[in-house]
Amino acid sequence: MSKPTLHTCLSPALLHLYDVKNTIVVVIDVLRATSTIATALYNGAKEIIPVDSVERCIQLGKELECITAGERDGQIAPGLQYGNSSFEYPREFIQNRTLVLTTTNGTKLLHMALAKGATEIITGSFLNLSAVCYHLIEMKKNVILGCAAWKDKPNIEDTMFAGAVVSRVKEHFAVNCDASHIAQTLYKVARNDMFEYMKQNDASHYHRLMGFGLEKDIRHCLTEDIADILPEYINGKLVIQKQ
Amino acid sequence: MSKPTLHTCLSPALLHLYDVKNTIVVVIDVLRATSTIATALYNGAKEIIPVDSVERCIQLGKELECITAGERDGQIAPGLQYGNSSFEYPREFIQNRTLVLTTTNGTKLLHMALAKGATEIITGSFLNLSAVCYHLIEMKKNVILGCAAWKDKPNIEDTMFAGAVVSRVKEHFAVNCDASHIAQTLYKVARNDMFEYMKQNDASHYHRLMGFGLEKDIRHCLTEDIADILPEYINGKLVIQKQ
Repeated sequence: MSKPTLHTCLSPALLHLYDVKNTIVVVIDVLRATSTIATALYNGAKEIIPVDSVERCIQLGKELECITAGERDGQIAPGLQYGNSSFEYPREFIQNRTLVLTTTNGTKLLHMALAKGATEIITGSFLNLSAVCYHLIEMKKNVILGCAAWKDKPNIEDTMFAGAVVSRVKEHFAVNCDASHIAQTLYKVARNDMFEYMKQNDASHYHRLMGFGLEKDIRHCLTEDIADILPEYINGKLVIQKQ
Repeated sequence: MSKPTLHTCLSPALLHLYDVKNTIVVVIDVLRATSTIATALYNGAKEIIPVDSVERCIQLGKELECITAGERDGQIAPGLQYGNSSFEYPREFIQNRTLVLTTTNGTKLLHMALAKGATEIITGSFLNLSAVCYHLIEMKKNVILGCAAWKDKPNIEDTMFAGAVVSRVKEHFAVNCDASHIAQTLYKVARNDMFEYMKQNDASHYHRLMGFGLEKDIRHCLTEDIADILPEYINGKLVIQKQ
């Protein structure tokens, strides 16, 4: 039997080049949406509803009487309650609660994958790297590692994460995809100290988040397997997938 | 005075994200269009007219009574005279002659850059790496390293070349561009033996060209500075830029 395929899509603006149908799409937005999603679900959140605008976040928060969260330019967006940091969602706060989270790049990619008929949409971050890899190997289906990027420009951290997945699962897939190999090379070079790699290479998000005083957040989001659950997007909500 | 900017655009499908106006665009199509262009001009070709279809190539060849060249699936395209290999264009053949060359990925990017108002369009390949770098440093203008890619999917060899340029010119530019840093990392890893890197990492063009028996072509196209001239696109033709 031939192996399923694996591709890395470095930007939502390239998603149309890939065959999304009958494919598992891993949405990757390392700094910080998919890291925060992994953390909140790991800490017991009932579900997370990703939306693409502050307005929609406020509206849904009222309708569902739930927590609203999102940032613009490093600050909690006006009208919302919380920000994009994993540290705002400890178990004692988030357990059994619903979170409406506004993100731009990640939510856009997620909705695109949905519209194009993905079989399954999960989210990936270093915090739940092993859960993602284990699942992909188990499923034996075609995979697209979808980097949320930054306003459609490829970024270092999402590409690094794609490379981390490639390096762990490649034996189980046919990887006829240069972007996957480029991502893996990046990960191999950076893996010993990803924070330092981002600093040395002037990563755009390193600069942006350090400017907001968020070194602790960056370091947290680059830590492997500390919230090792599998978020799946079902009926408009991200929940932990039942194995 | 602030430094000019440098960006790497990994695919023509991402060019709209960059500010092309008042910018030098380096069109990169390492396997094999921009390598063949460098070789033919280095060997004395009068000019090269890049066109995007076999039909247009045949038509112009008749009108101008010049050499027509281009391949489809590793064979000289029906109706054309020569192929895409540098080895077909030695000095004794090409000197003072006009070549109409049909390429798909590279020509598309070149026309896009032109339509978006690039100040200057030059072509880059490992064969003329130093000429490109020297020129970019001299000009002190904003730069976009435009990878032609393969049907809009980023590829290893064009990204490696962008990384080679970044590694040589970065001190002279503001490089707020993750793709440029990813490209540079790729080049640093691969540079000692780029052919071996492409082989080990299942580069898509490595497979495609090896399948056509073109190992010699791949190795040639990965050799630095053996046709070290600067092709510039002026009035629809690629010619050696006068310094």
